[in-house]
Amino acid sequence: MASLTPRIEQVIHALQCLPGVGRKTATRMTLFLLQGHRDDAAHIATSIEEALATVTSCAKCHNLSDAKVCDICSNPKRANGQLCVVETAADLVAIEETVTYQGRYFVLHGLLSPIDGIGPDELNLGTFLPCVRDSGIREVIVALNATVEGDATTHFISELLEGSDVALTQLAHGIPVGGELGYVNSRTIAQAFQRRVKLDA
Amino acid sequence: MASLTPRIEQVIHALQCLPGVGRKTATRMTLFLLQGHRDDAAHIATSIEEALATVTSCAKCHNLSDAKVCDICSNPKRANGQLCVVETAADLVAIEETVTYQGRYFVLHGLLSPIDGIGPDELNLGTFLPCVRDSGIREVIVALNATVEGDATTHFISELLEGSDVALTQLAHGIPVGGELGYVNSRTIAQAFQRRVKLDA
Repeated sequence: MASLTPRIEQVIHALQCLPGVGRKTATRMTLFLLQGHRDDAAHIATSIEEALATVTSCAKCHNLSDAKVCDICSNPKRANGQLCVVETAADLVAIEETVTYQGRYFVLHGLLSPIDGIGPDELNLGTFLPCVRDSGIREVIVALNATVEGDATTHFISELLEGSDVALTQLAHGIPVGGELGYVNSRTIAQAFQRRVKLDA
Repeated sequence: MASLTPRIEQVIHALQCLPGVGRKTATRMTLFLLQGHRDDAAHIATSIEEALATVTSCAKCHNLSDAKVCDICSNPKRANGQLCVVETAADLVAIEETVTYQGRYFVLHGLLSPIDGIGPDELNLGTFLPCVRDSGIREVIVALNATVEGDATTHFISELLEGSDVALTQLAHGIPVGGELGYVNSRTIAQAFQRRVKLDA
């Protein structure tokens, strides 16, 4: 298109890699930045570059970290024997925001998916058992999505832990708090029925 | 939050300047980039920096341009005596995508809004009349949003052109093509009634 120069097209194309951003949104963002928000644009570029230069993966839990070992792994208060297995750093952030969990994490950066060629070696599962052993873990809490890949990964972890005295638990399935029954899928409702909780009379 | 380092927070904060991006979306984008899409992240940073270094405002129409004068203004085929006034470069792109308009543009980069302290001097209106005169414009087509600010700006432009023999037109209001009546506001429906078009029997 004559109205978009190659340099502008390049920014649009780069922004389209972001989750949930298609061509239309990327174009809107790019024109917004280049028109009247050039300081913001420069800030985005430099902050990304600084983060790429400093943020790495924690050697213990594979969470994103500025240091070799992340704040959670280096915090002695969080060595309570619990280890929560999550798929992504975003899941970790979501759990941290609840301020209910006080243990440590293990970030897989993916789920087992043989059909996509993702086996145990593609995830961080090689360092999982050493991590469990060295950190004196007594309970592994699996907090993975309830998908085929999530279930396969949970099954793999349960096999890894077989024979050890480490307890293996999984987050409860059920109706989301504040959610409406009509919008919840039938598998979830079925699970919620099966695991219904007795109320005090 | 312990789980987000200062460098990560900085990227999240920078991305929040983008239109339609709140804290939650910015966090999701940032973790996506820093986790498994570092090449994409670097591409975003460098493409923004390159665009900032090269993309400027066209000296004639104020559209975004790599050169002093943009491709549309330097294209002799588009010197057909028509000048379309738009608010933003994004509006220009939207019109170009229709491939119906063959004339030139004038990008205001805003609308008159005395309440926000935006007068004619804050927009590009100072160069508007010289542009109309020097380019042999015979028709000015106003393509501004149908808001209070858009109407005020249209009125200001009509006053600027008073006494000249330049025709002033405005894009037609009406029901969007493919739109449902139930979702269109009553002002639009009223306009569509007023300007109804006779059909061949």
